[in-house]
Amino acid sequence: MSSHYGENIQLTIFGQSHSPAIGVTIDGLPSGIPLDLEALQQFMNRRAPGHNEWSTPRSEADRPEFLCGLHDGITCGAPLTAVIHNRNTRSGDYDSLADCPRPGHADLTAYLKYGPHRDYAGGGHFSGRLTAPLCIAGGICLQLLAREGITVMARIRSIADVQDDTPFLCSVADKEFPASDDAAGARMRQRIAEAKADGDSVGGIVECLVLGLPAGLGDPMFGGMENRMAAAIFAIPAVKGVEFGDGFEATRLRGSENNDPFAVENHRTITTTNHCGGILGGITDGMPLVVRAAFKPTPSIAKPQQSVSLTEGKETTLQVHGRHDPCIVPRAVPCVEAAAAIAVYDAWLSQQKYKEVPHGVE
Amino acid sequence: MSSHYGENIQLTIFGQSHSPAIGVTIDGLPSGIPLDLEALQQFMNRRAPGHNEWSTPRSEADRPEFLCGLHDGITCGAPLTAVIHNRNTRSGDYDSLADCPRPGHADLTAYLKYGPHRDYAGGGHFSGRLTAPLCIAGGICLQLLAREGITVMARIRSIADVQDDTPFLCSVADKEFPASDDAAGARMRQRIAEAKADGDSVGGIVECLVLGLPAGLGDPMFGGMENRMAAAIFAIPAVKGVEFGDGFEATRLRGSENNDPFAVENHRTITTTNHCGGILGGITDGMPLVVRAAFKPTPSIAKPQQSVSLTEGKETTLQVHGRHDPCIVPRAVPCVEAAAAIAVYDAWLSQQKYKEVPHGVE
Amino acid sequence: MSSHYGENIQLTIFGQSHSPAIGVTIDGLPSGIPLDLEALQQFMNRRAPGHNEWSTPRSEADRPEFLCGLHDGITCGAPLTAVIHNRNTRSGDYDSLADCPRPGHADLTAYLKYGPHRDYAGGGHFSGRLTAPLCIAGGICLQLLAREGITVMARIRSIADVQDDTPFLCSVADKEFPASDDAAGARMRQRIAEAKADGDSVGGIVECLVLGLPAGLGDPMFGGMENRMAAAIFAIPAVKGVEFGDGFEATRLRGSENNDPFAVENHRTITTTNHCGGILGGITDGMPLVVRAAFKPTPSIAKPQQSVSLTEGKETTLQVHGRHDPCIVPRAVPCVEAAAAIAVYDAWLSQQKYKEVPHGVE
Amino acid sequence: MSSHYGENIQLTIFGQSHSPAIGVTIDGLPSGIPLDLEALQQFMNRRAPGHNEWSTPRSEADRPEFLCGLHDGITCGAPLTAVIHNRNTRSGDYDSLADCPRPGHADLTAYLKYGPHRDYAGGGHFSGRLTAPLCIAGGICLQLLAREGITVMARIRSIADVQDDTPFLCSVADKEFPASDDAAGARMRQRIAEAKADGDSVGGIVECLVLGLPAGLGDPMFGGMENRMAAAIFAIPAVKGVEFGDGFEATRLRGSENNDPFAVENHRTITTTNHCGGILGGITDGMPLVVRAAFKPTPSIAKPQQSVSLTEGKETTLQVHGRHDPCIVPRAVPCVEAAAAIAVYDAWLSQQKYKEVPHGVE
Repeated sequence: MSSHYGENIQLTIFGQSHSPAIGVTIDGLPSGIPLDLEALQQFMNRRAPGHNEWSTPRSEADRPEFLCGLHDGITCGAPLTAVIHNRNTRSGDYDSLADCPRPGHADLTAYLKYGPHRDYAGGGHFSGRLTAPLCIAGGICLQLLAREGITVMARIRSIADVQDDTPFLCSVADKEFPASDDAAGARMRQRIAEAKADGDSVGGIVECLVLGLPAGLGDPMFGGMENRMAAAIFAIPAVKGVEFGDGFEATRLRGSENNDPFAVENHRTITTTNHCGGILGGITDGMPLVVRAAFKPTPSIAKPQQSVSLTEGKETTLQVHGRHDPCIVPRAVPCVEAAAAIAVYDAWLSQQKYKEVPHGVE
Repeated sequence: MSSHYGENIQLTIFGQSHSPAIGVTIDGLPSGIPLDLEALQQFMNRRAPGHNEWSTPRSEADRPEFLCGLHDGITCGAPLTAVIHNRNTRSGDYDSLADCPRPGHADLTAYLKYGPHRDYAGGGHFSGRLTAPLCIAGGICLQLLAREGITVMARIRSIADVQDDTPFLCSVADKEFPASDDAAGARMRQRIAEAKADGDSVGGIVECLVLGLPAGLGDPMFGGMENRMAAAIFAIPAVKGVEFGDGFEATRLRGSENNDPFAVENHRTITTTNHCGGILGGITDGMPLVVRAAFKPTPSIAKPQQSVSLTEGKETTLQVHGRHDPCIVPRAVPCVEAAAAIAVYDAWLSQQKYKEVPHGVE
Repeated sequence: MSSHYGENIQLTIFGQSHSPAIGVTIDGLPSGIPLDLEALQQFMNRRAPGHNEWSTPRSEADRPEFLCGLHDGITCGAPLTAVIHNRNTRSGDYDSLADCPRPGHADLTAYLKYGPHRDYAGGGHFSGRLTAPLCIAGGICLQLLAREGITVMARIRSIADVQDDTPFLCSVADKEFPASDDAAGARMRQRIAEAKADGDSVGGIVECLVLGLPAGLGDPMFGGMENRMAAAIFAIPAVKGVEFGDGFEATRLRGSENNDPFAVENHRTITTTNHCGGILGGITDGMPLVVRAAFKPTPSIAKPQQSVSLTEGKETTLQVHGRHDPCIVPRAVPCVEAAAAIAVYDAWLSQQKYKEVPHGVE
Repeated sequence: MSSHYGENIQLTIFGQSHSPAIGVTIDGLPSGIPLDLEALQQFMNRRAPGHNEWSTPRSEADRPEFLCGLHDGITCGAPLTAVIHNRNTRSGDYDSLADCPRPGHADLTAYLKYGPHRDYAGGGHFSGRLTAPLCIAGGICLQLLAREGITVMARIRSIADVQDDTPFLCSVADKEFPASDDAAGARMRQRIAEAKADGDSVGGIVECLVLGLPAGLGDPMFGGMENRMAAAIFAIPAVKGVEFGDGFEATRLRGSENNDPFAVENHRTITTTNHCGGILGGITDGMPLVVRAAFKPTPSIAKPQQSVSLTEGKETTLQVHGRHDPCIVPRAVPCVEAAAAIAVYDAWLSQQKYKEVPHGVE
């Protein structure tokens, strides 16, 4: 199940950081849907490395090549497979990692699970590079959701101790640095620059909204929107926490504060606040869905760190070379959108099955 | 998929708060394993209502009745089904809820998804009562894990603003109030009592440790331990956030602070700190797995709240009667253990498939 | 996966022949659908034992008791669980089987797979009795399909060497002996009576039609209607072959004979023959779906047979006592309908997801 | 689910006959296993077209290109993806099929399901060409099974009315025409040649043995070996029936004839006959597993056939051009081995989870 997601669309992500190619297969897409490949590329570009001071200088075009499932830019109903060939690989950088795992990385656990034949170069299948095929799939789901009037948008909510508490009112997709408040964004960039100067890294929080959602998506218990979205978002490397609505802060509120009062607006039940993040009992209530993902600081840092030699079984000091982001969070923003879009579109398809039931799901 | 979980064991949870019975089927259990039904009952009792001032006075024996899969207390390889008959139901309490959904509850979304024929009594399939079958399954998994030397233990980490920051060194399963530090526990109980006195409720955080885990459990991407555990834990009603290791706090650290240095101990690689919560790249590293779940305050409160009449389509004031916990968190402690045990046992079974691979998974 | 089926509805079957109860959980049913419980019972009665000379005299009421998911006879959207309590158990009959497996039965393989703790009484989870919950689920799916104008009907096509080659034009559900041609049916009953008189048994073929199917159900490759239906029908004990349309006979035809010519009727493409059994490329073409299942002769026979003592590891002669059908085929007719209905309804739900796609699936 | 198979390995097949590439992803393979790519290629060659008079002259190298999951020919634990680029495509041949579906083909149902944007060229995703990635996956599983002492071998059992009833004692993989008895093989080739001369086609039956299987593989009900194998084998285009052991013939036997007597050999229980085809109750008994697949005659024939114009909605005569096999059966032999190997390896992995259970599964 490692690389699979979905009940109605079925996603399969494959590839290693330095294998000939990485890619994704999506099965279950509707047929006859034109995809805007230019828009998809622009979405991919938001994730792509090498464009600014806070990301790795590794420069990959990250242009999806469609092997099947798409004909003249229109889905044909067959599984869609898109790959990205890995061109700018510099595996030599990683030779020292064969023996010496990077703290905070999957290097050790990949070795413990898969043994000496795991692909360690660039983190192998555990590399953040695998978020590129995630974004191909997510970018396609974003377009399918947009056809239904559903919008997914994410922003940086915090970097290190700098928080952007302004309301999240409009997309930041066009900004070079995807924070709502540019003043906060400037302080965030400063934290990143400071960390970079120290050979260190910082983390942060990405906040994502889903707007235009119909009520009734998601299922009880294990099929809740929280379960579905967490199962997708935790696939992004470095995510260590996921919360909905007020999330961990809600634990400090009283019920009378946290319960969202119901009201009627345009003959429809709404909530006058949204502490629950648009989800009650695992099911969307028609208000904006709010989810936040906590990203740990990038584990690859230039500072010397204590590691071990796997072959010699003794401690050693590791100095990581190669190209790394001092902060992954800005590039993670579209990844969270992608994971959210995948989970939401899958749940949306699920609900379509019952559209004709007599009681009339909205 | 609403009521299903698992790749290797397959869990199916069924029932409504006031249906004739609730229960669970677990398929994929090994055959020939004696279950300690007394220990299972004691585990169930930790979740059961009616035993103290902070839980609902609804008194259910919560005694699992085994319909199949168990023969003389020993698993026989066939799917195991256990049910609990709902005896002490007082559905009359809920008649007013047919028209008037409780804020913060699934009443509204159940109506929007399933229409007028949803079972609203006691929250139906969305009731916290469904954690009883979750605990049957989890209690069985706890016993199976114990055979492998794996222990799961949870405690209250915080209630409202009261936090227990003492180290989590030993089980609190025998305590009436499951906090590590009794002084903090006393303050937590006070917060609960205050809320109850006000006809209100409070939330909190449950922290769970998994000890004795072998390295190598979990899979990359969607199959990571974080994904698997979040997908199980979010099935517990009122959970709005899940984090691993330092979780959201890790976003404030630098890489050099958050990366756990590797060291060698007894010919085995360990980490000298555990900010990552025992999971790197989705895969266990052999250190304690640390997960925390944020519980919102119980939505059912005595205070009048603003709701709507579903039939009349206009706003109204709701006063919830019936029996409710002013704080669900103490009873949620075994539920988190149950969900964690289910996810871990399922991942453990998954890894068994590769035990004989030449490189020798630990 | 042993007891699970379905992508859109999720079936879980549980129980052993002599456990306290057997049953089924169906998740994913639409909400608000009234079930005709009387019709369901009549469907169950067609499978129930004890009503005539060719079935076991074990008399079970086989009345489903609904634990949840159904409210006043109307589905409520929550998982539906129905159980049948095993009352008329005579486990003493089976004591000798603990050591001595019945040839042709799962007794040996259950022992080899599950060890000494498998439940051998009455065949345990492998008993034909588990087709009762299959029929509960199938009977419900039949009613859901009927709402869409889809009919499933099966008949005996052959018993031993007696074949009914008359066209299958109308349901035989009301007949005591479910063959289309009563003369052939009389000869079939004679074969059964002869076998019974000899302490022996006979097998046969059940043929099933699905009428009123829309075109477009099923998916390519592993998701084909053949794959889906075979995966369900092989769950019925004693089935050793499944074929569609002309099936094995098609291997003797030439392409020009086997290809079904297309024609236009009422602005719709039809085939003028139906060698393909209504399925092309795994997908329904709108013509009647035709499937046949081969049932081996009942393995439980009164004649002495060569077996082994599992504990002593040496050969021995086994004489099976207890109650057994000399021919399972008449009672298998509703079971095949049930399995077919489950597979078809699951595929039908799958297709609903794409109903609104612009090209307009029929 | 159309292109997915497996519980423990997860197969995803993608591609269309004339898309840029076709391929397969296999997730869940053990790490550290060297694959014999030369042997894999030889296996692929048995399926490849263009080598003799009974197959289409379309000549594709069918050389898998490994995009990931394999490092120096050794599995690395990450999902393995292999693709074959479609080079020798002649889509012009298929232009007439856009409007006029070939009888016996998926052309009509693909149109009805996916609409005008389905990829009709060469049958699109429904093409027999998709068995090439099936054979990549199957060829890998064959090698993994061989490491466990498990052998899978298939042969032609019949073509049209010519049957090879000689015992299936050894592999025919090295034969140009894969029948056991060369005299029967010569008559089969004659039938193919006759059909070809008539612009027609013939079908046949492929028989497959699995040797060296441990007892205990498979699960009851939906997880039986019959269900698992049928779900895989029906993915091969043109298969219209699947049977195990004596299959449909068993319906003519009495229980006393069909039941396989048990005996003891080398301290192990065997059966002295094998009417059940090595499967009792869905679970392997340690004897050879026997499965047969019925292949209909190739639907693409040169003879004029009655079809319809989809756009004009009226009947027309179709003459199929392009390259087609007068008999697909010889090339289907490795495909059946592939599907069987995939199903068996998946079931074998499943059973590994319980290897350490105290009762000692063999």
